[in-house]
Order: sequence, then C-alpha cells, then structure tokens
Amino acid sequence: MLSKSQVSFVRLLHHKKNRKEHQLFIVEGIKSVSEFINSGYLVNNVYATGNVMPKLVNLSQKVKVTEITPTDINKMSTLATPQQVLAVVQIPVSKTISSGDFKGSYTLALDGLQDPGNLGTILRTADWFGIKQIICSEDCVEVYNPKVVQASMGSLSRMNVHYCSLSALLQKIRVPVYAATLNGKLITETVFGNEGVIVFGNEGNGIRPELINLISNRVTIPGSGRAESLNVAVSVALLCYEVHRNILK
Amino acid sequence: MLSKSQVSFVRLLHHKKNRKEHQLFIVEGIKSVSEFINSGYLVNNVYATGNVMPKLVNLSQKVKVTEITPTDINKMSTLATPQQVLAVVQIPVSKTISSGDFKGSYTLALDGLQDPGNLGTILRTADWFGIKQIICSEDCVEVYNPKVVQASMGSLSRMNVHYCSLSALLQKIRVPVYAATLNGKLITETVFGNEGVIVFGNEGNGIRPELINLISNRVTIPGSGRAESLNVAVSVALLCYEVHRNILK
Repeated sequence: MLSKSQVSFVRLLHHKKNRKEHQLFIVEGIKSVSEFINSGYLVNNVYATGNVMPKLVNLSQKVKVTEITPTDINKMSTLATPQQVLAVVQIPVSKTISSGDFKGSYTLALDGLQDPGNLGTILRTADWFGIKQIICSEDCVEVYNPKVVQASMGSLSRMNVHYCSLSALLQKIRVPVYAATLNGKLITETVFGNEGVIVFGNEGNGIRPELINLISNRVTIPGSGRAESLNVAVSVALLCYEVHRNILK
Repeated sequence: MLSKSQVSFVRLLHHKKNRKEHQLFIVEGIKSVSEFINSGYLVNNVYATGNVMPKLVNLSQKVKVTEITPTDINKMSTLATPQQVLAVVQIPVSKTISSGDFKGSYTLALDGLQDPGNLGTILRTADWFGIKQIICSEDCVEVYNPKVVQASMGSLSRMNVHYCSLSALLQKIRVPVYAATLNGKLITETVFGNEGVIVFGNEGNGIRPELINLISNRVTIPGSGRAESLNVAVSVALLCYEVHRNILK
C-alpha cells in the first residue's frame, strides 16, 4: 500500500527547488523509464499501475517496482495525460569537463535556451545523430525539468549534459567553434571536419554578444527567406544532419 | 474605453468551438500581428497597450487599433507571458483543392498530427524553405489553435492549409508521394524531383495503415540509431532541407 507521504514526495519533485534539494527527478512512460534503468543513472523507485506490471517483469529484476492505483499515478504525474509508469531517478554528480572532452567529436553548446520542449527535442535529435555531449550556459532551462525529460523521449539517459559559463569554456577549448546565425556561410557549402562545437542562441535574442568573438565559423541554413528564422531545435537538427552527412562522406 | 463584453468575447476565442462558431481566431505579438495585417487575412480588431502604440503607426492606417490597459490584454491573452499586441482575425473560407494544385512544387501532408507546437513549428519551417501548401488529415490539431499560431511565428499568414481526407486526396493526385518512415531509402541517397507530396505520421502511431499503399517512396533520415525516432517537426525540417538542396542543385 502506497503511503500518502510517498505521493506527496513525488509531487514535490514537480518543482525545481525540490529537485535540486533532493537531487532527484521524475521520468514517465515505460519506454523512457526502461532506458533510464538500463543506463548509468540510478533509479530509486518505479511506480506502475497493475495493468502494465506484466510488461515490467524484466525491469523488476533490476529495480523495485511498486504497484499503485491509477488515481495515485495521476496525482504523481507531471503530464496532462499521465502514463502508467513513473520513476524517481537520481541526478548524477556533475563531472568537470576539460578541453580533452572536445577532441574527435561534436558538442552542442546552448546559450540561454529557455523552452523545455526545445531542450528535450535537442537531446533527442543529438542522440539520433550520435552526438553525446551538450553544454548549457548556466541560465539555460534545467535539464531535469519534466517537460525536458518528456520531450527527450529517453535520450537524456544517453547524453552528457554540463552547465557552465560558455565564454570561459570556449576560451579554453582547441576545436573549431561554429555558430548557427543568420549571416554566415551556407551549411551546404561548409566542410565540417571531425570535431567541433556548435553554438545555438536563445529563442528570442540569439547568441549573447560576449560569445561572438569566440566563434570561428558562422554558418547559416539556406532557405527561401520568407520566415525570418527557424525554431532553435530545428536549427540544431539541420546542423547535426549536415555534420553527420559530412563525417560519413 | 474597452467594454467588458469585448474582453469576454476575445476570451471566448480561446476555445475551439467558439472559434468555429464565430470563424475568428487570435494572433498575438507585434511581429505576427503585422504579418497577418500585411497578408490576405482579414484582421477585425487590434488591441495594444499604450507603450507599443507608437510602433503601430504604420499598421493603424490599415486596421483599427484600440489602446487597452495591460490588465485587459492579460485577460484576453492565451499566453503565459502575454505580449502587448493582440489581434482578432477572420478564418478564411476554405477553398477546394484539386490535383493541379500539386504540380511543380512540394506539399506537406500531415496524418493525425496532435501537438499544436509541432504544427506551428512545421508551418514556420515549411515557410523558411519556400513550401506554400500543407494538407492536414481531418483529425489533425486545428491550425487556429493559439499554440499553433504562436509557434508558427507569423508563417501561418503565408501558408495554404487545407483539411481533408488524405486517402481520398492521395488517390487523386499525380505527383510522387514520399513518406518519412523508419525503413525507407536514405534521404541522402534519394533524388527529389521538382514536385511531390511528403507524408508525415502522428507523433505516437506514425502513418495510418490505409495510407501506406498510396505512398510511392518511403524515405528515412540517416542517424546513429541510438534514439528510436525523431520529433515530427524535426523530420519535416530535415526532409524540407533535403528537398530544397536537391532542387537548387
């Protein structure tokens, strides 16, 4: 039997300050929960309704699964349409990142990204294209926000995400720094090498001025010029696709 | 002075059934409102707070602008962070679409798309790449939903959007029908001609079975295979980019 205090505790984790205090976050849905259990993340508790318990047989060997009522899972859920499985997962201890971590691969750097759906979609897209590392400026939306976790569709479990000062970082690293802008060289004419960082700006304001001089290559997505700009998650996808295509050539 | 009934009337338009009854919808933000005023849409009313009135001088020659208080615009707004300009715009009379409308260009066909943010982002992206026509199955999210309008960032004002039965339509048209799937020919190896329809499926269930036989070319976005799938708006962007790149070659 689930205690009221367990439901209340999970509900606390809807809020950023409580996630930070307890170093825990919520993952929902059988696919995402399975991927977190099979990743390097530590899963504290899994709650599931009776009708999905048979599907969780394999998972229950690795983690304790508590059967709860649909009413209780609805109370715990952060979703408008709750899923039938919910996990409480530990936020990993953040590692320090060094210039060596940028060699031989591509990293995305996000400058002041605010929309959780965009960040989640970026994680999912980066994962699709084999990018494993994302650097967020300290004022980006929190990656353990339930909307980020949900939009990432499990990809957060496979991604290294760091928060730090982008200007301090970009000064230190020794790989080409690209940025998606509206006045650069067309990505169709850009030759991407085997390593680099690609910087994407805030949804409304773009890349902050203090970073501009740290960028070695401004690149632009070709278009017909009717829409003024693209959604940032769309820009990320097009850059990742072009990098992936260049590397496989 | 704004009457209470005007505020209440705009609030009615937050809901689909009232938009349908009155054939009106809401557009917010100075950029989007300007683009609708300068488009083929008929704008009934523009409401703006005093501090943005000077920016609306050009617009007020074309349409009546009513100055209102921030409190009233907050009541009218559909946004968590209201903008300072809001317009009430007429839903245009839907035109019939014939097979001739598909010749010589690309059309996107959306099958059961549910998320308003995805539809808005798709409109914005299609507009960027010069695509002018989008066909939605009848069970797609409504294009005048405020979240769609917001995410489209004004691009809805330049786009022809039709709702109809996709299976009836695909049987009639005489251009290649592509579909974004997980088991097709890589888009990097596909030669896109100068016309076609590209079908995208529902976020959870993909393309409905009855459409499968009406598709001439299944295409797939290359990736590393870690994430199982891509967000539908991201898939649209990658297909539009590849089509755009092929046509310009």
